[in-house]
Amino acid sequence: MFTDEERAFIDKQRVAHLATADTDGSPHVVPIVYALVEGSFYFVIDEKPKKSRHNLKRLRNIAVNPRVAVVIDRYDEDWSRLGYLLVRGEATVVTNDNVYARVLEELRRRYPQYRQMSLKMDTNPMVGVAPFVKHFWLAAAV
Amino acid sequence: MFTDEERAFIDKQRVAHLATADTDGSPHVVPIVYALVEGSFYFVIDEKPKKSRHNLKRLRNIAVNPRVAVVIDRYDEDWSRLGYLLVRGEATVVTNDNVYARVLEELRRRYPQYRQMSLKMDTNPMVGVAPFVKHFWLAAAV
Repeated sequence: MFTDEERAFIDKQRVAHLATADTDGSPHVVPIVYALVEGSFYFVIDEKPKKSRHNLKRLRNIAVNPRVAVVIDRYDEDWSRLGYLLVRGEATVVTNDNVYARVLEELRRRYPQYRQMSLKMDTNPMVGVAPFVKHFWLAAAV
Repeated sequence: MFTDEERAFIDKQRVAHLATADTDGSPHVVPIVYALVEGSFYFVIDEKPKKSRHNLKRLRNIAVNPRVAVVIDRYDEDWSRLGYLLVRGEATVVTNDNVYARVLEELRRRYPQYRQMSLKMDTNPMVGVAPFVKHFWLAAAV
């Protein structure tokens, strides 16, 4: 689904932004750290305190409306270097142990911050976004 | 609406992310550069080519569904420095010349890149987001 150039861009950036919407069409957006595994984007809920982890707005929205958008972009004061990759896709909570473990490994490769954190499927929901549309834009190419 | 700490945070960051949704509740998200003027966030459409400026997905969504979310966040490899300000609000296209001029001045103060660009109300739509909910989060405060 992604070209080599897009993969390199995705790998290089550190933060993405996830937009969700509730059934009334009211949008929500949060920064996420992410991993790309087999063509899907994943993030894990590492928030404290414990009791809020399953009740976050992004998860409540996904439960009622799995359509999401994710943008990964590069900001630079030289605006000819601006760029973004936008995908629209469907979000699902990971329920497969093997997928959870594999994505966590990739998240820990990208983010050493996660290596010291205990993250488990029952306490730290992981969400995958399978893209069905992508749009890659580089200012310099316009 | 915003505290001094929030204003300082807003002023310091360079890029925000705007989430919109269409009438089917399908979300969209793009990076924006922004100015805060009298408690509202503003951005201007500077995209090329000309013909697309009034037909961008973010503008089409706002036309049918003015509810939007804007997040301004700080990423840092030291995750105790993560932070974000999230607002949900209503978006409207600016139609008042004075407001347009005043916001443009503030955008040009924040972004010297705009000083060389010709930006006019009839060719470069400006959108204001009046927040009705805000949430300010700093990792270090958790």
